[in-house]
Amino acid sequence: MTKASLLELLAQVQAGTLTPQAATERLAALPYEDLGHTRIDHHRTLRTGLPEVIYAQDKSPAQTAEIFTRMAASGADVLATRVHQPTAEAVLAAVPAAIHHPQARAVTLKQSPHKQPEGHVAVLCAGTSDLPAAEEAAITAELFNARVTRLYDIGVAGLHRLLAVRDQLAAANAIIVCAGMEGALPSVVGGLVGVPVIAVPTSAGYGASFDGAAALLGMLNSCSPNVTVVNIDNGFGAAYTATLIARMAHKQ
Amino acid sequence: MTKASLLELLAQVQAGTLTPQAATERLAALPYEDLGHTRIDHHRTLRTGLPEVIYAQDKSPAQTAEIFTRMAASGADVLATRVHQPTAEAVLAAVPAAIHHPQARAVTLKQSPHKQPEGHVAVLCAGTSDLPAAEEAAITAELFNARVTRLYDIGVAGLHRLLAVRDQLAAANAIIVCAGMEGALPSVVGGLVGVPVIAVPTSAGYGASFDGAAALLGMLNSCSPNVTVVNIDNGFGAAYTATLIARMAHKQ
Amino acid sequence: MTKASLLELLAQVQAGTLTPQAATERLAALPYEDLGHTRIDHHRTLRTGLPEVIYAQDKSPAQTAEIFTRMAASGADVLATRVHQPTAEAVLAAVPAAIHHPQARAVTLKQSPHKQPEGHVAVLCAGTSDLPAAEEAAITAELFNARVTRLYDIGVAGLHRLLAVRDQLAAANAIIVCAGMEGALPSVVGGLVGVPVIAVPTSAGYGASFDGAAALLGMLNSCSPNVTVVNIDNGFGAAYTATLIARMAHKQ
Amino acid sequence: MTKASLLELLAQVQAGTLTPQAATERLAALPYEDLGHTRIDHHRTLRTGLPEVIYAQDKSPAQTAEIFTRMAASGADVLATRVHQPTAEAVLAAVPAAIHHPQARAVTLKQSPHKQPEGHVAVLCAGTSDLPAAEEAAITAELFNARVTRLYDIGVAGLHRLLAVRDQLAAANAIIVCAGMEGALPSVVGGLVGVPVIAVPTSAGYGASFDGAAALLGMLNSCSPNVTVVNIDNGFGAAYTATLIARMAHKQ
Amino acid sequence: MTKASLLELLAQVQAGTLTPQAATERLAALPYEDLGHTRIDHHRTLRTGLPEVIYAQDKSPAQTAEIFTRMAASGADVLATRVHQPTAEAVLAAVPAAIHHPQARAVTLKQSPHKQPEGHVAVLCAGTSDLPAAEEAAITAELFNARVTRLYDIGVAGLHRLLAVRDQLAAANAIIVCAGMEGALPSVVGGLVGVPVIAVPTSAGYGASFDGAAALLGMLNSCSPNVTVVNIDNGFGAAYTATLIARMAHKQ
Amino acid sequence: MTKASLLELLAQVQAGTLTPQAATERLAALPYEDLGHTRIDHHRTLRTGLPEVIYAQDKSPAQTAEIFTRMAASGADVLATRVHQPTAEAVLAAVPAAIHHPQARAVTLKQSPHKQPEGHVAVLCAGTSDLPAAEEAAITAELFNARVTRLYDIGVAGLHRLLAVRDQLAAANAIIVCAGMEGALPSVVGGLVGVPVIAVPTSAGYGASFDGAAALLGMLNSCSPNVTVVNIDNGFGAAYTATLIARMAHKQ
Amino acid sequence: MTKASLLELLAQVQAGTLTPQAATERLAALPYEDLGHTRIDHHRTLRTGLPEVIYAQDKSPAQTAEIFTRMAASGADVLATRVHQPTAEAVLAAVPAAIHHPQARAVTLKQSPHKQPEGHVAVLCAGTSDLPAAEEAAITAELFNARVTRLYDIGVAGLHRLLAVRDQLAAANAIIVCAGMEGALPSVVGGLVGVPVIAVPTSAGYGASFDGAAALLGMLNSCSPNVTVVNIDNGFGAAYTATLIARMAHKQ
Amino acid sequence: MTKASLLELLAQVQAGTLTPQAATERLAALPYEDLGHTRIDHHRTLRTGLPEVIYAQDKSPAQTAEIFTRMAASGADVLATRVHQPTAEAVLAAVPAAIHHPQARAVTLKQSPHKQPEGHVAVLCAGTSDLPAAEEAAITAELFNARVTRLYDIGVAGLHRLLAVRDQLAAANAIIVCAGMEGALPSVVGGLVGVPVIAVPTSAGYGASFDGAAALLGMLNSCSPNVTVVNIDNGFGAAYTATLIARMAHKQ
Repeated sequence: MTKASLLELLAQVQAGTLTPQAATERLAALPYEDLGHTRIDHHRTLRTGLPEVIYAQDKSPAQTAEIFTRMAASGADVLATRVHQPTAEAVLAAVPAAIHHPQARAVTLKQSPHKQPEGHVAVLCAGTSDLPAAEEAAITAELFNARVTRLYDIGVAGLHRLLAVRDQLAAANAIIVCAGMEGALPSVVGGLVGVPVIAVPTSAGYGASFDGAAALLGMLNSCSPNVTVVNIDNGFGAAYTATLIARMAHKQ
Repeated sequence: MTKASLLELLAQVQAGTLTPQAATERLAALPYEDLGHTRIDHHRTLRTGLPEVIYAQDKSPAQTAEIFTRMAASGADVLATRVHQPTAEAVLAAVPAAIHHPQARAVTLKQSPHKQPEGHVAVLCAGTSDLPAAEEAAITAELFNARVTRLYDIGVAGLHRLLAVRDQLAAANAIIVCAGMEGALPSVVGGLVGVPVIAVPTSAGYGASFDGAAALLGMLNSCSPNVTVVNIDNGFGAAYTATLIARMAHKQ
Repeated sequence: MTKASLLELLAQVQAGTLTPQAATERLAALPYEDLGHTRIDHHRTLRTGLPEVIYAQDKSPAQTAEIFTRMAASGADVLATRVHQPTAEAVLAAVPAAIHHPQARAVTLKQSPHKQPEGHVAVLCAGTSDLPAAEEAAITAELFNARVTRLYDIGVAGLHRLLAVRDQLAAANAIIVCAGMEGALPSVVGGLVGVPVIAVPTSAGYGASFDGAAALLGMLNSCSPNVTVVNIDNGFGAAYTATLIARMAHKQ
Repeated sequence: MTKASLLELLAQVQAGTLTPQAATERLAALPYEDLGHTRIDHHRTLRTGLPEVIYAQDKSPAQTAEIFTRMAASGADVLATRVHQPTAEAVLAAVPAAIHHPQARAVTLKQSPHKQPEGHVAVLCAGTSDLPAAEEAAITAELFNARVTRLYDIGVAGLHRLLAVRDQLAAANAIIVCAGMEGALPSVVGGLVGVPVIAVPTSAGYGASFDGAAALLGMLNSCSPNVTVVNIDNGFGAAYTATLIARMAHKQ
Repeated sequence: MTKASLLELLAQVQAGTLTPQAATERLAALPYEDLGHTRIDHHRTLRTGLPEVIYAQDKSPAQTAEIFTRMAASGADVLATRVHQPTAEAVLAAVPAAIHHPQARAVTLKQSPHKQPEGHVAVLCAGTSDLPAAEEAAITAELFNARVTRLYDIGVAGLHRLLAVRDQLAAANAIIVCAGMEGALPSVVGGLVGVPVIAVPTSAGYGASFDGAAALLGMLNSCSPNVTVVNIDNGFGAAYTATLIARMAHKQ
Repeated sequence: MTKASLLELLAQVQAGTLTPQAATERLAALPYEDLGHTRIDHHRTLRTGLPEVIYAQDKSPAQTAEIFTRMAASGADVLATRVHQPTAEAVLAAVPAAIHHPQARAVTLKQSPHKQPEGHVAVLCAGTSDLPAAEEAAITAELFNARVTRLYDIGVAGLHRLLAVRDQLAAANAIIVCAGMEGALPSVVGGLVGVPVIAVPTSAGYGASFDGAAALLGMLNSCSPNVTVVNIDNGFGAAYTATLIARMAHKQ
Repeated sequence: MTKASLLELLAQVQAGTLTPQAATERLAALPYEDLGHTRIDHHRTLRTGLPEVIYAQDKSPAQTAEIFTRMAASGADVLATRVHQPTAEAVLAAVPAAIHHPQARAVTLKQSPHKQPEGHVAVLCAGTSDLPAAEEAAITAELFNARVTRLYDIGVAGLHRLLAVRDQLAAANAIIVCAGMEGALPSVVGGLVGVPVIAVPTSAGYGASFDGAAALLGMLNSCSPNVTVVNIDNGFGAAYTATLIARMAHKQ
Repeated sequence: MTKASLLELLAQVQAGTLTPQAATERLAALPYEDLGHTRIDHHRTLRTGLPEVIYAQDKSPAQTAEIFTRMAASGADVLATRVHQPTAEAVLAAVPAAIHHPQARAVTLKQSPHKQPEGHVAVLCAGTSDLPAAEEAAITAELFNARVTRLYDIGVAGLHRLLAVRDQLAAANAIIVCAGMEGALPSVVGGLVGVPVIAVPTSAGYGASFDGAAALLGMLNSCSPNVTVVNIDNGFGAAYTATLIARMAHKQ
């Protein structure tokens, strides 16, 4: 449920087309709906102004489709992350208007009316192995109504590629940098521009990358002070925060 | 060197009081001054609009005082972090206008003219053990011209203390949360308000806190997607990014 | 063998229907029966008053079914944990009265006469990914004759869901909290009520959750002193201890 | 503030010796007193019925003494843990009735009237290196009004010492086992008796003990299902939970 | 090549049926035969008096069969460890006299004449999950001509099972103890008898067992000084050393 | 693009068969070609004089084949590493002149004219499990035009095999040593000869090898100061550096 | 109490100079003497035939001296390990016949009559940093009546030093190898001779030695199957087991 | 003993001033001199052509001075690393011609005749905290007769400083890069020039730098294939290998 749909509900009360009792019942149901296995938190959308999100990793296709359907019914935009193929199929069967983004491992549903993008997020990644995290970030930020610039396959071992996109970086309100292996890219980017950089370590690499731990540690020790870090492969979280920042920059 | 002092230099050229050759030479020197042990990067201030910073941890009192003095001479605001007592004394002997903040382990020098605060940063901490990181963050954000609200000793085991400051949290442009031990506070804060939360794990705790690693891991796995993380005890980095965000929110 | 069946045996001796020699032989066999691959410890039931338990993880379906059958023959209640589908089928083929609980990955056999529940255990979990551990705990506690209240999908990022069940928590003799990712829930629960909280870190999560290690460390560093911790995903162990506590509270 | 002192306050209201307004003010102050560096949570005592506790590790002697004094003024029993010698001296100077327990690194103040012990806690340790954790547990449980049986220097390499105290173990409501090195003692104890065992890994040992991590891991993997675990060296937390259990067993 | 076959070769020289030149050539070839992918070290058998061994884990069935065949041709006893089913089949096809031991994941070939066992090795394990390591140890020690006593499913949570076999333990020249989870069994065994105990941590367990690391650390920190440790699941290495010890004890 | 093909291009300009404009355009395109998912860095070949390399681990067969084809079109030698069977087939279908090396998991394309080898690299490995890394190194160094001596199955437990190849080691310009398990071989080799040794830890082993971490740590702590280390299983990187060294030794 | 003194006691009973009752009382006291902080286990000496041992690391000088004195009074040989200077002084003040070995950090008391050495133990170490562990091993083995050959400063980077002592190694019943850094020496020694090798990782080294963890892992992954491992710096444990082995070899 | 002094000895034999017997004896003594605590390996100098080196970390001042003196007596150049102040004083008292380099924590003795530098080594470091490792590397390479270019305080967050020294980097035969924190500098340097880069992670940093482990992991995962890595803070080892490479480049 969005602020808009809340206002509409209250307007119905004012207009006399909805009794206060009925309104109360619907509002009282807001904190969560209990599906047995999941309690849907419609309040979060109210609190944050951002879409509903389903983390589908450990949910069955049927569970995910059920939650997605219920959220869609509230009129909000919906995002499901970590969606595997069978789950995507189940969701699209239930909600045909939803869109599957295979590389991002995401399913989205856009229901809110089109608005001008609120702020600008740049998404960088170091290599093709980092694309799943980068695309999860880009798809998320786009659904959350940010303008997204994708800058992919830009590694620290070829600085000229990075220097070539410097202006695009400086123009963003927030920069998301996805990198595995040594995770050095956020530091270099952070040193180039005075913009908040959100670093996403990825599990790309082998051996002493220890499934992304090396990149994670590198990013946490960044010598560029405008770098903050999220969990390994957490493109969604990076985009969530980047969107909050971009929106603030835009809104004022 | 700040943008202001750069403009002044160029104005002198325009006015004919400085030859282009002399200006070129001073500008060419900008990238860094080489003190032998350290190359001062005056460009960063230009790029980011934020003060010069010295990480004094592994520098001798004499080295720190020398760098501080040189930076002060450029007219910029200056911040030295991880300053131990003898270093603080050396800096204050060289630059009497500087101020020592013992709990934050910082020395600051304010030289820029007073301006209205640009944006609003809240700094929370969970216990008295987290005060050094929290104060480092607060002092940094204040020097970087943000309005700072300190909310200390607020742990997840006593939720009523947290709920009591909810409005103050919602009013901030960015929230810094310093916590050691299990590091659960940023998740709870992030769930309460739709504001970017920068989590600072602290080395407070013992045993299986492993010097802050437990808090760090907890924060990286936060179930609140508006939480990003910096290095253990890195109050400075958190404030740096928080200030960038707050300034963007303010500037528009 | 339960205390009851032991008393019955001794009563037979007293009544003359069992010679002391025969009784001795049966008692001498008590410490364990040797199946070659496994020695069944019937004494434990005597010592603790709790059912026999089989950890089926690394046992073949045939081995598990054989042990289950032998334990069932002693008249005790029986619980098998970490039961995969083929093993469950083998056990049910051998002991048709047994019940398979797929989500809990458990098979139970109830043979003891119905009694009033002895004490009250609440089982919480943070998300759907935590259900296997939570259900293992709930099924175990129920077989061990505790009254169980399930409170699922209650995360720290949505405090209102937790505050809504506060009274149910306060009414329990012991609370089991299953949570992955940052593992913050036990601390928050522990701060709300003065009841022993047994924290079960789960392997839910990804990246820096390190298969539950992050949650485990978070729980060990809990700032709520009424929190103790068991192994990752060990719902069974949590329920075993919770039942001992609840029984004590009930018995007096 | 204890339940008793709350009742007394309300009785004064009933008797007319305290106006409701004055009572309200005192009750409103309950959630916490703000000392600047610390917010004292008097509610916890109300919620749990257990004394106020100060974790003195990272507090200055003056801070600890101030908090201790304020807590003592509320009439409650007070416990300070991780007290080093200078802090102990500062506290005793401020509150002469307090008692310093050097081996437990604790300071206690008993103000509540003497009561019969509520329940029975056994405290075991494996070697002299484990005494600080064991004594912290024992002192805590005694202040929390449990009867405490100390059973020290009982290692798994000399089983006869353990078998000799089996009856004392079986008589307890909860058993605390402190052990470093391989941390095997809780498993062996847990196998002997059907009583909840709270395992405290200690930092005793060297080399591959990794400051208690080896003992911690051993205890988490205990094959005895009645074993739960707390943080390394956390005798206080173990005693807190053990006391809750013992009190429940006693109260019924 | 064994000492016996070496002596036979030299006897042929003495008898004139082999020229010294031919003998020299055959002896010169001794250090190793080069199969391209593997250099067979026949010297080791000479140096140690123990059979040839193939670690088949990362070898193809064809490679393993080729090496096994070549070693068999030298007249020595042969042992292949970590043999998966297809490899076992390839070896038995090539060397029909070899025997496959599935639980031990081993293939053996006995070619030396039967001798009285040289020394006595006891092999204990804590649970059925530890059987692969235990059987690898037992099969190895038997092929290496030790008398082996198997004592399985003896955990520390049921001490009476262990005390029941104390005499059998005291009668051994070396004891191998395989245990996963907390790995406490070697300490308890080591405390019971004055015999060298070789501890084999196994990968049995889950969660915080970290694939055997918990058991490994526990065993390294054993409080019984007669315990030494080998790699996780390394039943072979334990038996190799145990046999050396038992042989020494027997030989004198 | 190699230096030779660059010179040819410039010669065309000189000869009038290519306009400066056309040449500029081709040179301007040099920094990278953007394939959408990948930006090919033709500059690296220019900078280093070594072939183009594709890390195929996380790329689809189609992506790898496309990049390989594009690189081949520039006239350079091409190497793809971490090539699985389907990818190899896709590449060979697209570029039939390429060669697949299954054990090395590599595909190579030799297009440059034959030259005398530039320098000499020895590649050692400890066991058959180390062959993939060793062959990746050997194939790489050969494509990079070094003379390669393979010395396989040489472990520290059989020193005579190592001493037998001492002269071959001393004759190399750089030595690559691949070893798993304890990773001791580089130290022993480094102590024998005054030649740079590049150590490649491999993931061979089990249990406490922790997927190569044990070998990695051993090599980093080598007591032979002529040992440097690369990532686990990184035969390619070792050969890349070894070739640079060998070429320098050869060139003078 | 040794076997000899036990036999003497029983002889007195036989001779009528001690009543069975008195003997029983003295024997009943055997299991341990309770000093409050420590329970002395005189049984261990009976069980194992080896001296009493005190681990003095976390004991006060007074505690250590008291235990040492009590043990000395029983007529046994006594060994205290991890003895710091003040503790050594306290022990020697109490038991002047004791001897302090500073490099081994040990104090010994020899009271048993001189016997022929029972077996032969070789102690190797790789560098001077390993001397404390090596000397602890050597002193222990000598007190336990083994003949000890010290072979110090023998590293794998200089194989000729090792080959020079090969015959001395082959003549030992057990070999103790102390090494830090990469810990490669035990594998090389184990490959040279068919004798049990007990590896002692030491905390010598820096950086990625991680206080001995690198050496520990290397030794656990040894490719020589006659290598077993003890805790980091645990020279005492290595010597204890080595002596048991040597004694067995000698006794037959 | 250097090659030169060996040739001189043989010339004396040729000239008849030294008997072959006497020469043999002196040569036979070559492998090492045994000082009791240390065996000096004069062979290494012969094998490698590089000076004698003493790792003084765990040696007493007297031991270090004794070894230094003995090595100096052989006529070779001598280097002692990890020299603390008292040790430096002891060495200089014994060998007044030696020089102490405090920042490098090294003492050197130059005895060989001056030669033209053999090759060129560049030493970079990222910050002042990395100076000890960088200076250890520089001093070592200079003593080993390389030309050394020091390029200090060059971090990845300020790329212009790095680009400014690109030509100096390209002119070197080997580059040593010392960096702590995220350790990103070697990757960036390796991407700029086709020269072997030896990366030295340093223990500079705090929190999640884990004493250099983060930098170490970052460097091992470098995306630049010309980067190899040595132990944390091991400037000496890096310079040793760099010198070998530079010498090869120079010699041809």
